[in-house]
Amino acid sequence: MASTASPMASQFRSSFASSSTKRLAVPKDINIGAAFRISPTKRSFVIKAVQIPREMEAIEEYPMNGGHGIYSYAKNSYRQGQAINAVKELIKEEITEKLDINKFPSSDTFRIVDVGCSTGPNTFFAVQNVLEAVEKKYQREGLDHCRLPEFQVFFNDHSSNDFNTLFTSLPPNKNYYVAGVPGSFHARLFPEASLHIVISSYALQWISHIPKELVDRSSPAWNKGRTYYAHAGAETIKAYADQFAKDMDNFFHFRAQEVVTGGMVLLTIPGGRLDYQILSNTLYDLLESTIVDLAKKGIISEEKLDSFNVPQYFPSPQEMEAAVKRNGCFSIERIECLHDEKKQANPKEARVFSSHMRAGLEFLLSEHFGHEIMDELFDLFTKKIEECEVFDMGVAFKLLVVLKRK
Amino acid sequence: MASTASPMASQFRSSFASSSTKRLAVPKDINIGAAFRISPTKRSFVIKAVQIPREMEAIEEYPMNGGHGIYSYAKNSYRQGQAINAVKELIKEEITEKLDINKFPSSDTFRIVDVGCSTGPNTFFAVQNVLEAVEKKYQREGLDHCRLPEFQVFFNDHSSNDFNTLFTSLPPNKNYYVAGVPGSFHARLFPEASLHIVISSYALQWISHIPKELVDRSSPAWNKGRTYYAHAGAETIKAYADQFAKDMDNFFHFRAQEVVTGGMVLLTIPGGRLDYQILSNTLYDLLESTIVDLAKKGIISEEKLDSFNVPQYFPSPQEMEAAVKRNGCFSIERIECLHDEKKQANPKEARVFSSHMRAGLEFLLSEHFGHEIMDELFDLFTKKIEECEVFDMGVAFKLLVVLKRK
Repeated sequence: MASTASPMASQFRSSFASSSTKRLAVPKDINIGAAFRISPTKRSFVIKAVQIPREMEAIEEYPMNGGHGIYSYAKNSYRQGQAINAVKELIKEEITEKLDINKFPSSDTFRIVDVGCSTGPNTFFAVQNVLEAVEKKYQREGLDHCRLPEFQVFFNDHSSNDFNTLFTSLPPNKNYYVAGVPGSFHARLFPEASLHIVISSYALQWISHIPKELVDRSSPAWNKGRTYYAHAGAETIKAYADQFAKDMDNFFHFRAQEVVTGGMVLLTIPGGRLDYQILSNTLYDLLESTIVDLAKKGIISEEKLDSFNVPQYFPSPQEMEAAVKRNGCFSIERIECLHDEKKQANPKEARVFSSHMRAGLEFLLSEHFGHEIMDELFDLFTKKIEECEVFDMGVAFKLLVVLKRK
Repeated sequence: MASTASPMASQFRSSFASSSTKRLAVPKDINIGAAFRISPTKRSFVIKAVQIPREMEAIEEYPMNGGHGIYSYAKNSYRQGQAINAVKELIKEEITEKLDINKFPSSDTFRIVDVGCSTGPNTFFAVQNVLEAVEKKYQREGLDHCRLPEFQVFFNDHSSNDFNTLFTSLPPNKNYYVAGVPGSFHARLFPEASLHIVISSYALQWISHIPKELVDRSSPAWNKGRTYYAHAGAETIKAYADQFAKDMDNFFHFRAQEVVTGGMVLLTIPGGRLDYQILSNTLYDLLESTIVDLAKKGIISEEKLDSFNVPQYFPSPQEMEAAVKRNGCFSIERIECLHDEKKQANPKEARVFSSHMRAGLEFLLSEHFGHEIMDELFDLFTKKIEECEVFDMGVAFKLLVVLKRK
């Protein structure tokens, strides 16, 4: 099945006014640990230390392949790079139009974070793009045109991310101070009101963990014989969607604490549609088919197939809008849908696409199925791509979500 | 020769008042790159981005052994741990007595950095000690006793440091936000006035690079047949000492920009004496003797021996005092000398000491002499420790330098 995504861009392009009052909503699933004191102050409340979401222990880490090897993320992240490139001008436009620099004390360091940054080089391009937009904004609107703030850029990803590769491949002529922040973006990462811009590119689709019911034989959501939700039943889809919604509640809850008033959050996410049909014929479909074939051949057990699920969810614009509104701390400045291209088959490129998927999923797959079958799995996957006449590069579209902290 | 260090503690224990006015002195060897704009403001000046010391290209990286293997720093850093433990109470005392918390806006995040932190676990103990002292100070003297600031702790080391090991071994119940900062402490690392406490434990003895004259046959400082300066001629010693002085000028220049008024710098450094005799019979002596023996056997070439120098310098309290005074931005609150213990030989422990040195110097030695002779080199080194009746654990004493930003 080919993509049939309808043109949704214009209808989500406008700004939304939230009816919520300014507050730091504590979602129901957030537990403030006993070790952390809360004391009343003029700034609502002060939390001494990191809040722990109740399901913190369930946040799992799925690092991209580190290093610079042939299957590394650093060498196989062209698609994420394309996504960054596709929204580059939109992001610049949004920042130069909407960032409230006059709300920030002029002596402040300007702090930017890329959450879920992996190892580079994409994160460096994304950050540079933001920096150029912010500099332009200061040059155009700053009270003193010569005075640019100092920039501090935080690169965030799980603690198992390959920060060594990230740090040794930093751009040599960067005009910002660098820091790496290990930890999940589903949890609190930064001090209160300490960030001016949060970006994230192709990271938020990773859910914090696979909901238990997907691997529970007694649950109607049991995802038997499948590896993700595209062709699954309604209960399975709902389990994925609910997990994503919970994860977004945590994400916006924590970012609302970290971002200053007037600060912006710009998210690029591979998006899907609520009817899910759009997911057919994607690289994920071909990967599922590969794993099913290996199970049929007896190379992996049926049990292993049934207990494996890709921890990614591709939200619709409506789902993202709903999550932001539930949180209530951000105004929606723009939700833009950019359609993914359909890819005409080209046998020469099959290996490239296969390696691209391998860079992102090998850790996950080898943890579950064993390192020893990775070559066979990806060889078969490559063949399936070669045999496929037309497939979707992505899942439906890239979703750009631009928010401002109220 | 055994240690003959005189009791210097008391004479350096008092506070010194600097005659310098408050300023950000730009040392002669600092070059503000063309890419960086300077514009006048009420805060003296604002530099858009990272300053580049003129000798930046000469800053070399000597990472400790990463990971958790048998020769890793993480498993072989007991001596650094002992040093941290030895000054633990003194550091607590200094912070609780002298930190000017009422100078810091109450809404500020309290930012701490450990420069030259390596991979842990020592850095976590050192940081925890500082945190406890700061918390005590706030509880005792804060205007609102219940209100503790949020803490953000930066772990700094060269970009080739094993941050992956550091990040995956962070204490689970830490009550601070974490960030890793890659880069040399001989350069600028942080935005202006963004740090409240800087600590460093057993790191500042690493000089930024070996002065050229040490390997220049035509120079009187040529360090032929030796690997460090303990038994070298006056010219060689001077070259080491001058390099250390320049490095300290950079260190204090950059830290002065980064630390807020009232903020503190607490440094633990393996110290030596100006007469250098104290360096005899140390582990460094035994290592030099090992390398010389390998050269005599023809296992390493004479040229390789002549061109190798350990890039460490063990300053006297007088040298540290002079460096702080040249900078002029810090008051000296305390310089304390804690004598290193003499170690009675114990053959069982020889391997432990050898592995300790290997964790810190293997990168350097294998880069120069080749990885393939490391086992032989350290086996011989271990034998030399076994045969030695008494040796100095350290070089003379631990030096605790406590400063406050004026």
